[in-house]
Amino acid sequence: MHDNRYTLSVSEIPDAWYNLAADLPEPIPPHCHPRTGEPVTPEDMAAIFPPALIEQEVSTERWIPIPDAVREKLAIWRPSPLVRARNLEKHLGTPARIYYKNEGVSPAGSHKPNTAVAQVYYNKLAGIERIATETGAGQWGSSLAFACDLFGLSCKVYMVRISYEQKPYRRSLMKLWGAECIPSPSPDTQSGRSILEKDPDTTGSLGIAISEAVEDAASHDNTNYALGSVLNHVCTHQSIIGLELKKQIALAEDTPDVLIGCAGGGSNLAGLIWPYVKDTLDGKGPRLVAVEPSACPTLTRGRYAYDYGDCVGMAPLACMYTLGHGFVPSGIHAGGLRYHGMAPSVSLLAKLGALESVNYHQNAAFEAGVLFARTEGICPAPETNHAIRAAIDEAVRCKQTGEEKCIVFNFSGHGHFDLLSYDKYLAGELEDFDLPQENIDKALADLPRASVEVSA
Amino acid sequence: MHDNRYTLSVSEIPDAWYNLAADLPEPIPPHCHPRTGEPVTPEDMAAIFPPALIEQEVSTERWIPIPDAVREKLAIWRPSPLVRARNLEKHLGTPARIYYKNEGVSPAGSHKPNTAVAQVYYNKLAGIERIATETGAGQWGSSLAFACDLFGLSCKVYMVRISYEQKPYRRSLMKLWGAECIPSPSPDTQSGRSILEKDPDTTGSLGIAISEAVEDAASHDNTNYALGSVLNHVCTHQSIIGLELKKQIALAEDTPDVLIGCAGGGSNLAGLIWPYVKDTLDGKGPRLVAVEPSACPTLTRGRYAYDYGDCVGMAPLACMYTLGHGFVPSGIHAGGLRYHGMAPSVSLLAKLGALESVNYHQNAAFEAGVLFARTEGICPAPETNHAIRAAIDEAVRCKQTGEEKCIVFNFSGHGHFDLLSYDKYLAGELEDFDLPQENIDKALADLPRASVEVSA
Repeated sequence: MHDNRYTLSVSEIPDAWYNLAADLPEPIPPHCHPRTGEPVTPEDMAAIFPPALIEQEVSTERWIPIPDAVREKLAIWRPSPLVRARNLEKHLGTPARIYYKNEGVSPAGSHKPNTAVAQVYYNKLAGIERIATETGAGQWGSSLAFACDLFGLSCKVYMVRISYEQKPYRRSLMKLWGAECIPSPSPDTQSGRSILEKDPDTTGSLGIAISEAVEDAASHDNTNYALGSVLNHVCTHQSIIGLELKKQIALAEDTPDVLIGCAGGGSNLAGLIWPYVKDTLDGKGPRLVAVEPSACPTLTRGRYAYDYGDCVGMAPLACMYTLGHGFVPSGIHAGGLRYHGMAPSVSLLAKLGALESVNYHQNAAFEAGVLFARTEGICPAPETNHAIRAAIDEAVRCKQTGEEKCIVFNFSGHGHFDLLSYDKYLAGELEDFDLPQENIDKALADLPRASVEVSA
Repeated sequence: MHDNRYTLSVSEIPDAWYNLAADLPEPIPPHCHPRTGEPVTPEDMAAIFPPALIEQEVSTERWIPIPDAVREKLAIWRPSPLVRARNLEKHLGTPARIYYKNEGVSPAGSHKPNTAVAQVYYNKLAGIERIATETGAGQWGSSLAFACDLFGLSCKVYMVRISYEQKPYRRSLMKLWGAECIPSPSPDTQSGRSILEKDPDTTGSLGIAISEAVEDAASHDNTNYALGSVLNHVCTHQSIIGLELKKQIALAEDTPDVLIGCAGGGSNLAGLIWPYVKDTLDGKGPRLVAVEPSACPTLTRGRYAYDYGDCVGMAPLACMYTLGHGFVPSGIHAGGLRYHGMAPSVSLLAKLGALESVNYHQNAAFEAGVLFARTEGICPAPETNHAIRAAIDEAVRCKQTGEEKCIVFNFSGHGHFDLLSYDKYLAGELEDFDLPQENIDKALADLPRASVEVSA
């Protein structure tokens, strides 16, 4: 029997992260202050982030050492397996080789703990005893809860109320790991109270939850805030995915022709591709593909411009592909992909032409996820289904052309807590929403005054 | 950093199962007909089982070859990792080494697919096109659904109605893998209809669901029935766990002093210990420990006697430890451990003195599970928590005595679909039920007339 899993030992966990900033032909444009429009200073960031992360955020060093204390915690589930999807290949009848890097094996079930563990460590090092954050569907909240528990920090998660009620399992995970998880808007912050006064029955939103978490961090001693995607240091922490992949694909005696990841804020895609980008920029690396939902097509239909990181205009301005901070995507099940912007680093790669992008409707994505579950056994997260769809389409094109390509995608997470959305798909109850251009134009017309439009 | 995971390549998946029958000093007493009390013949079994499984059920050959077609499907998730729980050890401050064999990595999340894949293969070989079964909480039903999907057989699962309503996620998994899952009692069988006529609001029971599944198999062409535990061939299929363990623990340059598994029907424990029993019987092997819930203490407080395999007296009589087929355990969350009997092979080992047993209340088990989740990251199934509790207690005793024991337990499954029971535990809402001796005596007084009491 042929091997299908390429595993590394704990001692082969990389000892440094890969920082893309070292490889870019132009610098990543800095974050700017939401009111002044001036570049954010380290002092601005010091209110909610520890020094080491602020330093990583602006570093242009290629290699950033991973502290042993972080590697020791990563070893709880890493190195994650690289798996060749032979059953899927056989089903498709493709000459292509399809591999997936399984980030679903982490305790929280996705790639998010890769950065959560690092962020909590640096906060602890800075004497921080408590971290506040927001979460939508709960992937990030549960990952941060897990990481805080490992290092003995307190954790408070403001969870968008509708998700709090609809996703009790992720809420339970956070409690299991000792975190306090409260529905947002909550009576615990000024922002929360003012919203509740106006509308006691509100379902909440990520924007409100961010406001609550930032206010909490700013108003409590020894409390910081943490973000699960978008920022450079988050993408750098995720590069461990691509670094392990390089070793594992060598064990398989193969070389990637295409690397594929779904993209919401951009961090799981970044993690997969960072160590390959230099070769791609030099014209000798793999094709790099970002996969988005048609309901939130930031790279495929958005504009490259400065826009607020959040949807209420309180977070710093980032230079990125955006649909406008006021853009509200329809209620697709891939909650992790419903972000109006995209990591500035990932956005710059797209602008430079090094990163392709494609979008799919959710029924097409779920169709791919079900095929994956029925051939490879694992039930994927709705976000991950987007990457699977693109990998399958690439493999089917290979069948037509006869090309024996090596396709690698990032299996960003499992779908054990998303099974009710599969029920809806299987019952034919999932909607694919058309997104008229005027909706995007309208949201883009409202870009911040401070915005410097960089290119169309 | 020290290694903590011992992985094998796909080519190291064992090519033969280990059949304990070859090692026993006396034969496993045969199943007997529920009405006549005479040993069940292969012809009796042929109505619902394929020839190969009937042969395996009574075989005394030590090695039973695993067909390549089965190994190929097992390779979707096997070999499963052996993990050293270094974070748990550190937390306990024990000189003991604690390892767990992680069967939670299977697509359905437990050890059950090990036998489901084999059973479906042999049914397909015999020209069977459809399999009917029952399921309680859904571990077995989802595993059989997965295996049927892999081999292209139809699958119908009669799921106890209260679980069908309370555990929508496992029901979704079955549908994802193409199975029909219906709440039992159902209008689809004579047994189901007659119950529904009397009590339309019944919550159902495993006994009723078994009756429906067996009736379905007997009344449909090319349809067989499949059982997820208890029988010899099921335990033999699970021996792949212990066979892999032998190779992996050698990689760790270690030797088990104690092997621990939770025990409901007995198959996950059997799978772990089968290849070690001969040495233990010869006085040179590890201690073997079965862990039960206090609410259903079959080995620890039951009687070794012939009793019905089901709770309504339609299934064959098995010679086993039993609490009486009429015994109804309290509603603990470890649904997979609520069986009144125990695999005859496992029972015989206990009778011979080769297998120790211990029982724990569910709060003690959940306490161990939470500690495991907070140190090793993975959230265990409520059943698995029983094995973890025993492993922790053993390690704590080592701390007191200074013994550097090697403790291995079977991590039979993850708890991703059981998080609501963790909520209840963390909220202090789980009850520990005392089980008065008179309740057991009463159920044992009702042992079948045909029962030959073998020993007290």
